Amino acid sequence: MATGKINVSVDNIFPLIKKFLYSDHEIFLRELISNATDATLKLKHLTSIGEAKVDYGNPIIEVKVDKEGKKLHIIDQGIGMTQDEVEKYINEVAFSGAEEFLNKYEDGAKDAGIIGHFGLGFYSAFMVAHKVEIFTKSFKEDAEAVHWTCDGSPEFTLGKADKKDRGTEIVLHIAEDSTEFLEENRISELLRKYNKFMPIPIKFGTRTETLPKPEGAKEDDPAPTKEVDNIINNPNPAWTKQPTDLEDKDYKEFYRELYPMQFEEPLFHIHLNVDYPFNLTGILYFPKLTNDLNIQKDKIQLYQNQVFVTDNVEGIVPEFLTMLRGVIDSPDIPLNVSRSYLQADGAVKKISSYITRKVADKLNSLFKNNREDFEKKWNDIKIVIEYGMLSEEKFFEKADKFALYPTVDGDYFTFEELQEKIKDKQTDKDDKLVILYASDKEAQHSYIEAAKAKGYEVLLLDSPIISHLMQKLETSKEKISFARVDADHIDNLIKKEDTQISKLSDEEKEKLKANLEEVIDDKNYTVQLEAMDSDASPFIITEPEFMRRMKEMQQTGGGGMFGMGNMPDMYNIVVNTNHELVGEILNTKTAKKRERLINQSIDLAKLSKGLLKGQELTEFIKRSYEMVK
Amino acid sequence: MATGKINVSVDNIFPLIKKFLYSDHEIFLRELISNATDATLKLKHLTSIGEAKVDYGNPIIEVKVDKEGKKLHIIDQGIGMTQDEVEKYINEVAFSGAEEFLNKYEDGAKDAGIIGHFGLGFYSAFMVAHKVEIFTKSFKEDAEAVHWTCDGSPEFTLGKADKKDRGTEIVLHIAEDSTEFLEENRISELLRKYNKFMPIPIKFGTRTETLPKPEGAKEDDPAPTKEVDNIINNPNPAWTKQPTDLEDKDYKEFYRELYPMQFEEPLFHIHLNVDYPFNLTGILYFPKLTNDLNIQKDKIQLYQNQVFVTDNVEGIVPEFLTMLRGVIDSPDIPLNVSRSYLQADGAVKKISSYITRKVADKLNSLFKNNREDFEKKWNDIKIVIEYGMLSEEKFFEKADKFALYPTVDGDYFTFEELQEKIKDKQTDKDDKLVILYASDKEAQHSYIEAAKAKGYEVLLLDSPIISHLMQKLETSKEKISFARVDADHIDNLIKKEDTQISKLSDEEKEKLKANLEEVIDDKNYTVQLEAMDSDASPFIITEPEFMRRMKEMQQTGGGGMFGMGNMPDMYNIVVNTNHELVGEILNTKTAKKRERLINQSIDLAKLSKGLLKGQELTEFIKRSYEMVK
Repeated sequence: MATGKINVSVDNIFPLIKKFLYSDHEIFLRELISNATDATLKLKHLTSIGEAKVDYGNPIIEVKVDKEGKKLHIIDQGIGMTQDEVEKYINEVAFSGAEEFLNKYEDGAKDAGIIGHFGLGFYSAFMVAHKVEIFTKSFKEDAEAVHWTCDGSPEFTLGKADKKDRGTEIVLHIAEDSTEFLEENRISELLRKYNKFMPIPIKFGTRTETLPKPEGAKEDDPAPTKEVDNIINNPNPAWTKQPTDLEDKDYKEFYRELYPMQFEEPLFHIHLNVDYPFNLTGILYFPKLTNDLNIQKDKIQLYQNQVFVTDNVEGIVPEFLTMLRGVIDSPDIPLNVSRSYLQADGAVKKISSYITRKVADKLNSLFKNNREDFEKKWNDIKIVIEYGMLSEEKFFEKADKFALYPTVDGDYFTFEELQEKIKDKQTDKDDKLVILYASDKEAQHSYIEAAKAKGYEVLLLDSPIISHLMQKLETSKEKISFARVDADHIDNLIKKEDTQISKLSDEEKEKLKANLEEVIDDKNYTVQLEAMDSDASPFIITEPEFMRRMKEMQQTGGGGMFGMGNMPDMYNIVVNTNHELVGEILNTKTAKKRERLINQSIDLAKLSKGLLKGQELTEFIKRSYEMVK
Repeated sequence: MATGKINVSVDNIFPLIKKFLYSDHEIFLRELISNATDATLKLKHLTSIGEAKVDYGNPIIEVKVDKEGKKLHIIDQGIGMTQDEVEKYINEVAFSGAEEFLNKYEDGAKDAGIIGHFGLGFYSAFMVAHKVEIFTKSFKEDAEAVHWTCDGSPEFTLGKADKKDRGTEIVLHIAEDSTEFLEENRISELLRKYNKFMPIPIKFGTRTETLPKPEGAKEDDPAPTKEVDNIINNPNPAWTKQPTDLEDKDYKEFYRELYPMQFEEPLFHIHLNVDYPFNLTGILYFPKLTNDLNIQKDKIQLYQNQVFVTDNVEGIVPEFLTMLRGVIDSPDIPLNVSRSYLQADGAVKKISSYITRKVADKLNSLFKNNREDFEKKWNDIKIVIEYGMLSEEKFFEKADKFALYPTVDGDYFTFEELQEKIKDKQTDKDDKLVILYASDKEAQHSYIEAAKAKGYEVLLLDSPIISHLMQKLETSKEKISFARVDADHIDNLIKKEDTQISKLSDEEKEKLKANLEEVIDDKNYTVQLEAMDSDASPFIITEPEFMRRMKEMQQTGGGGMFGMGNMPDMYNIVVNTNHELVGEILNTKTAKKRERLINQSIDLAKLSKGLLKGQELTEFIKRSYEMVK
């Protein structure tokens, strides 16, 4: 048996890099600027610990487009490389320079925020360049400048350069199929996308600044101007600072920096800042949300050490929080791995539950410290909270203390407060607490009025997922149930011991029922005679809670019962046998006149429930105009 | 100046593969089965051209899980490898074996459907295995079996094996962090996902088959059974066959194979089949679509030579067709590239426009050959067609011939037919053709009736994006305009030369207007006096077309005018000065009585337009019950 070493055929490594390493060619610029940043931060670190005897100064990174020469330059003022280092770090692919550096200066380096994709990142240049040059001069005393070139084949040349300044200049000779990267607009776009918050100032061209006029200048004299470096990034974004150093206006300003096209201000922010057992900083914002769950996701930006990575945080942030906005920065989130892997990763799981906890804590403190303001914002944030209560048990436990239940009159209760407030009046004869709600103040107006006339509280619950939440509350709390105000007539919704006495005899009831069913004749409507107050409505159309809720749950996805979504709507016609008009119908002898009375009454009941439409409505209106005259 | 060769440090190539090459670890199985398939198809090709003097037989690929031994086996009966070939193809990473093979047997190989990611694909095994073994025996005469092992470091061992059968067996010693791949369910799931339609039968375990009872067996005797290979794939899926060999029921069966959880049948299918200038086969299905554009995407599966790749076909299939379902198989679609690159790729562009053309042609032939059926399906397919007309100019040109415009009475016209049908009656005095439509038959019933009373056709246009399409039609066709039936009163929507004479004098009109405005007092309603037929409605509420449409366009995204979406709804109250009731209002002296008349009339007009709600409605109903009695 023989043994040997697997040989990597180097002729094929470049196409491989080009094809597989990065699916997105544009990230080459991010990689090269990351390298330049690392080289600068390394120098900063070395000078701070006295290992580099040079003046660190105020280094910048410069990006230059030379459209005519078809070249792109990236220039830094960092540590630079000696010839030995070029041979070691550049000529040996996959040699992880950053790793060695990290091992050497372990603790300090971490603090200095150095990660570095050194080595591999550099080769992404060949995705867009047919030839790459490096001019570099090390910070080390007496170091000579080095010039390296490579045309994408494994052959390189290495010689002396006459570079005077410390640092590295990378020159990309842009390939024919990548000339987009010679357009200033395109480079500008990339810098804005990936480098907006990198820690070293990045210069891209110059801009003209207007200076104050000199004393004694005439009114017509043009103001003097000067050309200044155009710095495209903010090297110290808000999330890298301590919360104690920031005011509310700083957070709002940073929001505008992140979302320049967003005109509305965020409702509030959450500053994330943890370094054990993982490293994570960031700021999350609660924007105003509408009821459309889908279109608002993917606004959170993920960074690693101030380098933009992606705006897809699925798997990192719990689903229900993807509707928020802001920034998360963590070197501990593995990149280039599948979403399913991410979700199984231990560190990521911890990050996700940390974020959930921080959001819950923030909401809780907002609720406690300024309840009035929290109530005002409730309508804009409820969808996130309700969604979270449904999907994360731990969040449910916390949110149960501050989730609000608004009434149709604009009061807001926590669940506990609600229970306390309504328990005397709204506990039924079986000792169950019945929570009444409406989903639409306008459409259910008459039903709401009927409930309020009894002294009941009516909640206004109109989120798209509220039926799921009610279902959850009914099973996790004891002896409570939710009922929409139009689910039955009010005396049936909260049944008490006392029963109303009907003015009609059983015989009369039977006759009335027969009369009504003869005229109504629609299998989706069931006649239900009830002895109610004589001043309650003569006719009410109701829609039983169970069926309706199951259908709603099916429509908003998940839950409910299979096939329910397609069932027809079923209604009851509740007839108040104690109402004068109903007595009149019973006593009307002429069939035609009786039919007219019934029809007009049913039309009005349908109208009240929003069921009178089309032809029926047009005819009703015509008939009514006749009656106006 | 020195030159040299870049050295790839091989110690680091495996972590690299593990980390970067594939973001999804699970695809290792797809890669290994692809290799096994290639090895089998190569043998088939070589025997067919007489280069291999062996019996091809009915080879299968077997996948075996050895949970106790923590091993996964993939066994094929293909060409196998000699020791030289192992050294060449396995020990040299990035050596593209398939490429060399393709060059040698160029035309034939392409026909045999061989692509092969040979070489690189194999190394994906190290993403899940800490050690990999190969047992292989070439088909070549007197070839000796070879045994290769590697533990993920670059060291390998190579020796003799005592394998008797032709072919290759790969043994993966599954790593601690990948034990999920020792679960039968997980492997089953992967095989179903990636290999359901691969061209060589794949065996995974056995299953028990019941045989017919032997003659003379007693009733109580158990039926004999036998263990048979459990083949998990269909090696000859419908899309690889010729359309002429398939019947309608075969297409429906294949649909069920693709979407076992889908109970509804597809409406129709489109068989794609082209080999120049690119290779593409596939079957697309039109499912029944609802009006929700978002939730129905990502059902089309992309294959390369029967190997599943992804179900995200964004960029390959035009946006408007991503709502369809089915399969696309093309070796010409570059993988592992960014979406933006895909969209710029020439081949992909051609594929996309080929698919668009085929879909348009199919729709056209359905329309021509069975118009009745096409009309029946219109409601289920219109959203795709309308979306396509909006987003692809070429599709618009074709679809303009078969896109249908249904009327509220259930007739269907093409645009040309519609023009012909209505041009006499619905051309206004400025020679413009006015196309009337409703968006909701029920809600706009009285307005539809008024238009029909004039002998006009009213379309029923209720797609969510229809306002955008109308806008497009109005600009691309000459002298036409769309108007919703409630945009104004009908005589104003289609203005003719003849003018109605008002029964009221100018003075009376002024007085009437003052009376009305005093009672109405709502800045969102404008009083508009019109001399109409005396039997037309006394009061109509209208909503001008332009504003309403702009708002709708904003709400469905894009188009419209900036900021329009948040404008309040504005209405006109059209008062028919020739109606008896209006005369009565004018002549009523008591302010209180007049106010009551006006209020009841306005309530009825609001009711007709669906604007009477909440408190107003409840009060209206109460008042009306009083009047019934």
